[in-house]
Amino acid sequence: MKDLSQLFQHMLMDVYYAEKKILKSLPKMAEKAGDKALVEAFNAHFTETEGQIDRLERVFEMLDRKPEGETCEALDGLVAEAEEIMKEAGSDAVRDAGLLAAAQAVEHYEISRYGTLVAWAQELGLAEVVGLLQETLDQEYAADELLDRLASEKINKLAA
Amino acid sequence: MKDLSQLFQHMLMDVYYAEKKILKSLPKMAEKAGDKALVEAFNAHFTETEGQIDRLERVFEMLDRKPEGETCEALDGLVAEAEEIMKEAGSDAVRDAGLLAAAQAVEHYEISRYGTLVAWAQELGLAEVVGLLQETLDQEYAADELLDRLASEKINKLAA
Repeated sequence: MKDLSQLFQHMLMDVYYAEKKILKSLPKMAEKAGDKALVEAFNAHFTETEGQIDRLERVFEMLDRKPEGETCEALDGLVAEAEEIMKEAGSDAVRDAGLLAAAQAVEHYEISRYGTLVAWAQELGLAEVVGLLQETLDQEYAADELLDRLASEKINKLAA
Repeated sequence: MKDLSQLFQHMLMDVYYAEKKILKSLPKMAEKAGDKALVEAFNAHFTETEGQIDRLERVFEMLDRKPEGETCEALDGLVAEAEEIMKEAGSDAVRDAGLLAAAQAVEHYEISRYGTLVAWAQELGLAEVVGLLQETLDQEYAADELLDRLASEKINKLAA
């Protein structure tokens, strides 16, 4: 990786892999979640994730590159933690609290990565790319805030 | 994990493992970083991390538990990414931009985990624990903001 452009493309592949894996994981989380509002949040984020993958593919296209993912061990680890909770939770309420926390860790991973990608695209003068990635970043922040609200108003109380 | 208290203790072990690993990783990152302000940020966060580990040990004590870590694959993945950048960056400026981004991903992991731990400790009525973990959460937010500022004012520009 000899310049910021290559670094950017490397992280783009990372995030593309991550979004595709999240798309596979969300239906499993929605299936295992008990609380209706949490199930809805996971389903809504599934639809958002489809749009985010589409945006990433448009960014690859703008850079004249074929959309391609690269294994991201950190995201694999986060998804593995969510799967562990699905298996080991002793009650629906505890599973919901654990799944919600796992989803927030994934959101924060994405907030960090899209935040960096937006900053790098700005330095690289890629205005259209900035617009697309900023749209996704805003969605990730909103998804995390919704989960925060669900946790404090309901899910954590039910698990306590 | 049959209740929120067990879930809390599980995540506490997770974060304890993470902080110990971050403590090992930061001096390597500081050694490889080129920009003086970035080196200082990593060194300052090393000192903060020592305090954060100390706080976690006090929380374990409050819960009558021996401090113990549990492998966290997500954090291992984030540290592996930082190490990959150290090896593969083609210039000092690119390495700094990549290392800064890797550090922000770690910060966001911690923000997510401490945010959850604070929320769960509140539900569990552990007021003193909330105070200790909130102190660390505030430090993680501040560390991330400092990195944001360094990135936009200097490090990303040098790499572009």
